[in-house]
Amino acid sequence: MKRAFTLLLGLAVAWPALSAGTKKACDTLVTAGLVVTMDASYATFRNGAVAILGGKIVDVGPAADLAGRWAPKKTIARPDAILAPGLVNTHTHAAMNLMRGISDDLPLMEWLTKSIFPAEARNVSPDFVKAGTTLACLEMARGGTTTFVDMYYFESDVAAATEACGLRGVLGETWIDFPVPGHKDLAETEKVTRDFLLKWKGHRRITAAIAPHAPYTCSEATLRAAMAMSKEHGAPLLIHLSETRDEQKTLREKTGGSPTQWLESLGFLGPNVVAAHGVWLDEADIKTLKARNVLVAHNPESNMKLASGTAPVVAMRKAGLDVGLGTDGVAGSNNDLSMFETMDFAGKLAKVTTLDPTALPARDLFSMATREAARGLKMDDRIGSLEAGKEADLIAVELSDARTQPSYDPYSTLVYAAKESDVSLTLVEGRVVFDARAKDPFPTIDQKKAVADAGLWRKKILASLGAK
Amino acid sequence: MKRAFTLLLGLAVAWPALSAGTKKACDTLVTAGLVVTMDASYATFRNGAVAILGGKIVDVGPAADLAGRWAPKKTIARPDAILAPGLVNTHTHAAMNLMRGISDDLPLMEWLTKSIFPAEARNVSPDFVKAGTTLACLEMARGGTTTFVDMYYFESDVAAATEACGLRGVLGETWIDFPVPGHKDLAETEKVTRDFLLKWKGHRRITAAIAPHAPYTCSEATLRAAMAMSKEHGAPLLIHLSETRDEQKTLREKTGGSPTQWLESLGFLGPNVVAAHGVWLDEADIKTLKARNVLVAHNPESNMKLASGTAPVVAMRKAGLDVGLGTDGVAGSNNDLSMFETMDFAGKLAKVTTLDPTALPARDLFSMATREAARGLKMDDRIGSLEAGKEADLIAVELSDARTQPSYDPYSTLVYAAKESDVSLTLVEGRVVFDARAKDPFPTIDQKKAVADAGLWRKKILASLGAK
Repeated sequence: MKRAFTLLLGLAVAWPALSAGTKKACDTLVTAGLVVTMDASYATFRNGAVAILGGKIVDVGPAADLAGRWAPKKTIARPDAILAPGLVNTHTHAAMNLMRGISDDLPLMEWLTKSIFPAEARNVSPDFVKAGTTLACLEMARGGTTTFVDMYYFESDVAAATEACGLRGVLGETWIDFPVPGHKDLAETEKVTRDFLLKWKGHRRITAAIAPHAPYTCSEATLRAAMAMSKEHGAPLLIHLSETRDEQKTLREKTGGSPTQWLESLGFLGPNVVAAHGVWLDEADIKTLKARNVLVAHNPESNMKLASGTAPVVAMRKAGLDVGLGTDGVAGSNNDLSMFETMDFAGKLAKVTTLDPTALPARDLFSMATREAARGLKMDDRIGSLEAGKEADLIAVELSDARTQPSYDPYSTLVYAAKESDVSLTLVEGRVVFDARAKDPFPTIDQKKAVADAGLWRKKILASLGAK
Repeated sequence: MKRAFTLLLGLAVAWPALSAGTKKACDTLVTAGLVVTMDASYATFRNGAVAILGGKIVDVGPAADLAGRWAPKKTIARPDAILAPGLVNTHTHAAMNLMRGISDDLPLMEWLTKSIFPAEARNVSPDFVKAGTTLACLEMARGGTTTFVDMYYFESDVAAATEACGLRGVLGETWIDFPVPGHKDLAETEKVTRDFLLKWKGHRRITAAIAPHAPYTCSEATLRAAMAMSKEHGAPLLIHLSETRDEQKTLREKTGGSPTQWLESLGFLGPNVVAAHGVWLDEADIKTLKARNVLVAHNPESNMKLASGTAPVVAMRKAGLDVGLGTDGVAGSNNDLSMFETMDFAGKLAKVTTLDPTALPARDLFSMATREAARGLKMDDRIGSLEAGKEADLIAVELSDARTQPSYDPYSTLVYAAKESDVSLTLVEGRVVFDARAKDPFPTIDQKKAVADAGLWRKKILASLGAK
């Protein structure tokens, strides 16, 4: 009996050493007061942790358990924070950050023709999009956005800037039936886009895409060419769809049906399509988009600010459509890239529009910014939740501020109270792109240069418009 | 000639000293990249300054000019910021900060009866309102709100907390026709309120007010008693008005008219009335409120989140009514006290509701949060703009962040891009209540205690509701 006891005691004493010997090595262990996984069961872990190896999540659970299983090279502790999946912005034009609020409170056509189009024609270049995208990545990394879906010009340069900043992007070269910076006709557009698709093929963080601008700005030939190239290269198709009443009217006059029905008649719609806005979709449109498994990118702030209307988000989700959230660009449509604000706007807009305070509850809104967006992008094998096997795209949101205290429900706090300024940590593929507590909070981005460049471009843009 | 030159040289050398001798003493000189005064001409000063003496603004203009006129004891420099009037929150329930987001996404009556009313009945006390108001003042000071209009219970304790935190308040004791914390019937309500009004009479920062809850929760007798007391003490009357469709229906059944027309028939409406919400006002109501010079407090986020509806703000302002902005309380209606977000919501909501992108432009929105609110509160001789003679209630909003860069128009930046986290300085009556660059950013508030208290109260409140 005594021997048995001594043996047991010996084992107990030796246990930590034996146990340490069985621990597996990982790169990083991130611990937090609460881990919100956004997995299928919406599991959360109080005093939880995420283990990361090779940029991927290898374990999620209670911090005490993970400490027993993993020997990390580096530990990041955020005891007062919620750890959550990185946010996914499903529609923006990142380079337009250089024109933030260049003209507000104007009718859409006046805004486009007096400010945006001339400013773009005279300024947009590879340097412009690199500076603008870098400024946008700085804002996104700060605000917890790890993946963004982009439509602009010189998208290969957008990709280069995104790659350098360490963010994840689905980046679409814009096709439109008039000459734009970088390509003057369809033939050149196809060449530029093909080069872009080939250059970034297989990149882990950059997905090169094709972005025919909209049904009212692209001819049938343009749309068919985009479809063919998408098929050939397996590239996503990004498009603005049913943003304004004018678009509805134009397409109905031209094709006899809605913009959605026209795209459907061309065979354009499919699981690789992201349709931005969807403000004026009717029941038949929603049915079609669901049948084709299209992701709709809902942009509440842009639709409100430009007075485009209100997208029927509740009806779309009820029909089973995946709906992601987008900020749109900041040159008059928003004017920032905050996904926290976008969740808040999406929720409140849905409630007041349906006169139903239970519409789009907080957890659904957080899902639309993470899990549901990833599923709609057909990237849910890689991002959108904190689960072993997925890319380590994650954020810490501090709850120590007066504005987030007290917290009765993590989803409510994340959606209705927290702001981008509460993010204290942003990782993409396990790599820190923002750490509020580090000496250099943006290890991948030269913050000072990005802000200084914004000032220089502001002067150039104003001069190009004949302003002071 | 040589003598004359020597004399001139001598004068030139002596000039700074002579000049200094003519400088007047002031307490503080605040300089900034841009001063946005919100005076009648919307004057702005690049590299501007504000001089403060005895808590009042004594001079505003180019920094170079003020440097020649004033010898300050203390200088605060914010070269990358906009200096602007402090923001005025015209409707909130500060103490409810302890119940931030306690239950969201519920129908109004379920929210009230299952959470708010029982939580209030079991917890609200002088200690509760002091802790809640202090937490709210911490959030408001951080976010650039210098004046707030409040409706709650134990309002004398709300006043004590507000006074201690250094903010300015128009604080109304709530009257309602059922027993509430602190008073069980009208007689007790009158006594408590009279004591409160007398106690704070003549205070420079605290305006004690009477807050009959709403036309549907107060009988005619209650409203008449509130009117009489208001007349006797010169106290403002704060009331919820036309917030929901149910209220419209109830009042129409009871009185044959709208809530506004009922109040008008009692002689309730006048320049000392602040009417919160005004969602369901019709043309006749707006005309009446304008004739009586009532301030309407517009709460876009609350009206959206609770699905109350959309207030006809554009029509109200077109009729010449003063419309201020309010956050409402944070226990489900918002869930924060950010006036920056409120400006943004108010603008975007007006645009999408009217389908007019030019509705409520940025400068009007900033005016509603400053100048117009002050005018509506009949406090524009004291606050609402940066002008000599007014109280030195002012904020600095930093433009050095990626999110506020570049800036093409100060009002656009303040309303559509800046957030409460961009505020780096908040002064009330010339006294620092927040300075992001100071060792102790909140010299008037014990930040750690306020946040810790929030955690303690959270536990008590949950326990009182039978939750974990």
